[in-house]
Amino acid sequence: MGRRTFLLVLLMTAISLTHVAAQDVEAVLELYSQAFDMIWLTLAGALVFLMQAGFAMVETGLTRAKNAGNIIMKNLMDFSMGAIAYFAVGWAIMYGASAAGLVGTDQFFLAGADSADFRDWFFQVVFAATAATIVSGAMAERTKYSGYLLYSAVVSGLIYPVSGHWIWSDAGWLAGMGFHDFAGSTVVHSVGAWAALAGAIMIGARRGKYVKVGDVVTVKAIQGHNMPLAALGVFILWFGWYGFNAGSTLSGTDLDIAYVATTTTLAASAGAIAAMVTSWKWFGKPDPSMSLNGALAGLVAITAGTWVISPGLSLLVGALGGVIVVISVEIIDKVLHVDDPVGAISVHGITGIWGTLAVGLFGDLELIGSGLTRGGQIGVQLIGIGAVLLWVLSTSFILFYLLKTWGLLRVSPEDELLGLDISEHGTESYAGFQIFSNV
Amino acid sequence: MGRRTFLLVLLMTAISLTHVAAQDVEAVLELYSQAFDMIWLTLAGALVFLMQAGFAMVETGLTRAKNAGNIIMKNLMDFSMGAIAYFAVGWAIMYGASAAGLVGTDQFFLAGADSADFRDWFFQVVFAATAATIVSGAMAERTKYSGYLLYSAVVSGLIYPVSGHWIWSDAGWLAGMGFHDFAGSTVVHSVGAWAALAGAIMIGARRGKYVKVGDVVTVKAIQGHNMPLAALGVFILWFGWYGFNAGSTLSGTDLDIAYVATTTTLAASAGAIAAMVTSWKWFGKPDPSMSLNGALAGLVAITAGTWVISPGLSLLVGALGGVIVVISVEIIDKVLHVDDPVGAISVHGITGIWGTLAVGLFGDLELIGSGLTRGGQIGVQLIGIGAVLLWVLSTSFILFYLLKTWGLLRVSPEDELLGLDISEHGTESYAGFQIFSNV
Amino acid sequence: MGRRTFLLVLLMTAISLTHVAAQDVEAVLELYSQAFDMIWLTLAGALVFLMQAGFAMVETGLTRAKNAGNIIMKNLMDFSMGAIAYFAVGWAIMYGASAAGLVGTDQFFLAGADSADFRDWFFQVVFAATAATIVSGAMAERTKYSGYLLYSAVVSGLIYPVSGHWIWSDAGWLAGMGFHDFAGSTVVHSVGAWAALAGAIMIGARRGKYVKVGDVVTVKAIQGHNMPLAALGVFILWFGWYGFNAGSTLSGTDLDIAYVATTTTLAASAGAIAAMVTSWKWFGKPDPSMSLNGALAGLVAITAGTWVISPGLSLLVGALGGVIVVISVEIIDKVLHVDDPVGAISVHGITGIWGTLAVGLFGDLELIGSGLTRGGQIGVQLIGIGAVLLWVLSTSFILFYLLKTWGLLRVSPEDELLGLDISEHGTESYAGFQIFSNV
Repeated sequence: MGRRTFLLVLLMTAISLTHVAAQDVEAVLELYSQAFDMIWLTLAGALVFLMQAGFAMVETGLTRAKNAGNIIMKNLMDFSMGAIAYFAVGWAIMYGASAAGLVGTDQFFLAGADSADFRDWFFQVVFAATAATIVSGAMAERTKYSGYLLYSAVVSGLIYPVSGHWIWSDAGWLAGMGFHDFAGSTVVHSVGAWAALAGAIMIGARRGKYVKVGDVVTVKAIQGHNMPLAALGVFILWFGWYGFNAGSTLSGTDLDIAYVATTTTLAASAGAIAAMVTSWKWFGKPDPSMSLNGALAGLVAITAGTWVISPGLSLLVGALGGVIVVISVEIIDKVLHVDDPVGAISVHGITGIWGTLAVGLFGDLELIGSGLTRGGQIGVQLIGIGAVLLWVLSTSFILFYLLKTWGLLRVSPEDELLGLDISEHGTESYAGFQIFSNV
Repeated sequence: MGRRTFLLVLLMTAISLTHVAAQDVEAVLELYSQAFDMIWLTLAGALVFLMQAGFAMVETGLTRAKNAGNIIMKNLMDFSMGAIAYFAVGWAIMYGASAAGLVGTDQFFLAGADSADFRDWFFQVVFAATAATIVSGAMAERTKYSGYLLYSAVVSGLIYPVSGHWIWSDAGWLAGMGFHDFAGSTVVHSVGAWAALAGAIMIGARRGKYVKVGDVVTVKAIQGHNMPLAALGVFILWFGWYGFNAGSTLSGTDLDIAYVATTTTLAASAGAIAAMVTSWKWFGKPDPSMSLNGALAGLVAITAGTWVISPGLSLLVGALGGVIVVISVEIIDKVLHVDDPVGAISVHGITGIWGTLAVGLFGDLELIGSGLTRGGQIGVQLIGIGAVLLWVLSTSFILFYLLKTWGLLRVSPEDELLGLDISEHGTESYAGFQIFSNV
Repeated sequence: MGRRTFLLVLLMTAISLTHVAAQDVEAVLELYSQAFDMIWLTLAGALVFLMQAGFAMVETGLTRAKNAGNIIMKNLMDFSMGAIAYFAVGWAIMYGASAAGLVGTDQFFLAGADSADFRDWFFQVVFAATAATIVSGAMAERTKYSGYLLYSAVVSGLIYPVSGHWIWSDAGWLAGMGFHDFAGSTVVHSVGAWAALAGAIMIGARRGKYVKVGDVVTVKAIQGHNMPLAALGVFILWFGWYGFNAGSTLSGTDLDIAYVATTTTLAASAGAIAAMVTSWKWFGKPDPSMSLNGALAGLVAITAGTWVISPGLSLLVGALGGVIVVISVEIIDKVLHVDDPVGAISVHGITGIWGTLAVGLFGDLELIGSGLTRGGQIGVQLIGIGAVLLWVLSTSFILFYLLKTWGLLRVSPEDELLGLDISEHGTESYAGFQIFSNV
């Protein structure tokens, strides 16, 4: 072998070794990229799952002791029914190949799923269940258990995924218009709230809640039985929200994760304070359940724009969320006479509108990346809010109408008086405690 | 320097630079690989730790108010005693150099541990404590506190690690046979349950639980005092189970993490629903505590096969777990008259058998990788189930027999009537609340 | 082109390709390094956030039912006020450009923050809120709500960040001396405790707590109303502590993360057992609330030295923490007659001193890296303990003196008797339950 040949061989070897090494390194880097997403989304999803405990505690705490077991059964079952429904059809409808941007059409039962699909399904199923669980709060203390099971599966398996497809599937028609809802003020919270609104109207108020004498309606406050549990629930929800919002970066190598956690923290804090101050000015004393709902309102409000709204403005978005929720709770109760025991419609729906709109008003247009003007973005946000409201309200009214027709919606007045723990489940939640039977 | 020499030098420089860079990159990639495992297992371990809170709430909620403080003391102490016992001897017995596949023999007090050992110890200690805490539920409301402390340390430090060594140490004799228990249906849950069974038999039923008049035994239901806490406990356990099962991949770059989370979610959901339906059909109403136990049964059932069972079959495994747990609770209580206040033997033991067997029945043989046929795998699973049952039952009976002999097992009938909070701890758990003293 | 030229071109191409690839790889590796820190610190921060729920449950559980709503309002608000204060000024004071090692001077409102700043702010804000929340426990059941809000913001926004700057800012004067406090035995826990001490002294005891007849003071025990919630709180705090301590590695690629989790686990376990044994010997029975506080004492004690103290010695540090906390609670109550309903001064302050000192006594000097001798390190630890005590006690006394002068510190005796839920918030926490009104 001549020197030149030798050199050439050496050179080619060096190049090929480098190439092989580079290929190996590339494969490892690709694996790591997937590993980041995998552990981030699984852990974030687990945090969102824990929000089920938060909802259960908030709803139990803000209602009466005689229905506590029923509430926690509903919370357990909306996740359980919802998860299976979302496995069977929900995921397919939401993220399957799109039919005209309206609905997904394949991957039923996760057919053909790979590791990335399982990762995404797990992160999404906990969101789907969140929408369903919101409904249970607004319909608490008088809904028939069997009816609840049915609509819970329909919300997670059908109603939620369709509007979800419009917005979070790349091919969705609202996504195509540039609608921006980062973590689900509309996609998740408003969907739950509009179903809750339809349900609360359809089922009517709890007995004794609105007493009409002549033309005068007296509104009775029905106090929750366990504020520490309600507070625990709010803290757990807030904790889970770090998975909910920061996890919605959908990538473990996204360096905006803590930015999202920051705006989330500030909005929640501002919401709690603003609701407290509002209740203080209005009612004379700082109200615990309003303040707790204020924290949730701040969280719901920032959920849509958590990635595109500045920290300073997130304070404003959260604070207005806290003010709005107090006003909304009062109007829905005192003026509209819709009985929502835990304020779910206000917390998740009215504040959800505000948060979705706030994206248009305050969001960084470059980050949103829709190419729309400020006015255009506001318009699209309004279209999205309206479209989801229409879809969910109309389908939910049909659903609850059917349940009512079939006699599956509401328990009898006797059972309501007795409490759903005994009438629906044959059990007591606080055996041994002296509890006043008339509340 | 001639051109050829120059070229050669250039070439060698290029090769060596590439080589150096490649070495650097390799070192960083290796560090990252360890970092993935480190943060994944530490976070997963923290989630499993929180299961202690879950067990504490479930066990407190399903027993009477007069014993609540005792229950939470037992839960606090089984982890505290267990962690120190597992540090001193448990880890060494379970993962030390194997003597004939039967028992580990070195690394007592974590001697010579490096960062990977601390990582693995932390992830394992929270499992060891889980086994111990299961026992406290089945023996609740009548066990002497001092006796509890003793057996708690023995379970975590000795009984659990020995059978753990057989299965989870590479050199273990059951591991060598191809026994597969991914996250511990047998290793953790059955071990706790068989110790609980021995304990519940040895200590006898709570006073007034089984009243014998002539030949007829009347079985009294003793209701738990706080269903919301029990429900909270189940949600927390479910949350922790994502650390328990998905963490058992033992690697932060394992892309099956979400697959495991998926089968875990589906099995738990199916278990909750199936137990609810079973109780509904059987007792006439959907029972909250059965449904909660159904979710746990689904989780225990999928724990062994979570990585090798398909999502669709995980629904079946979980659902059967939910059915089994209701039947088992009824038989153990009504037929066998073994008093297990929280259903721990059924949830963790009987369902643990089912889950371990399901690996053989439904597991992907290629993934299991034992090289066994379907029949062979089933046979090995049965051998493992039987061996652990024999080991734990026999050692636990000896342990509880000694405690009984020494007068450390059961409180006096007067103390039991008074409640263990006052008799064992001189305290009340719900000061200020009116509680009926006879329950 | 001659062969030599061809070879040269090939060679240069190979080198430049390698170089480009290396640059690309380097950029990806750098991104991954940041991603590790991002997801690790965000998740660890979320765990620390959940400690707010833990504090809320511990403080609620260990006080009376009639003040439960007030306690949880205070816990909600100290985080909410604290987060905004720490955003506006706290972070700037703690980590801004240092003025003579005494105080930070820029980055108010997170001006100019990049992704790493948001990451660090989020991880730090949850620590700042921890310091504030400690105070609420010691002043529970008699503090005016409006006054609480004010001092809560001052602690998080001003008092905590200044001493924090001294120790955790690289430019801080105590950091410069070699003072070592890994995760905040002094920086966080003692700061909260000294503010609590000033507050508890200034506000005085709860009515009926110390009854003076002639020269004899009778000390009345005022029992907490909900031990299961207190226990839940401790488990949640312990869980959050894995974020608190292990997160304080501040790096997701630090391979000592599990080492920290290990010493944390062992110290907490030893603290719980030691406090239990101490209370058993002293009072005749193993006391639940002492044992729970013992676990917290073990955690506070190991917090400073979790990274530099061996596993074996962490058992000693934790155990002594557990003994100290029982003695301290008794002395502060029975001898000094300072009324601290939950034992916060003992748990976070006295044990905080012990933990900070333990770094000097038992810490690995090489790891500490201050270059000091053992004696020198002990001396510096004492200086740091004393400096922080002086700073916090003096500023807190001024703060509470002003609140007292302005009539914002303490509710009226009538309101205290009635309970703060009704007097301050116009609500009941346990509607429907029969509760004895005189406790």
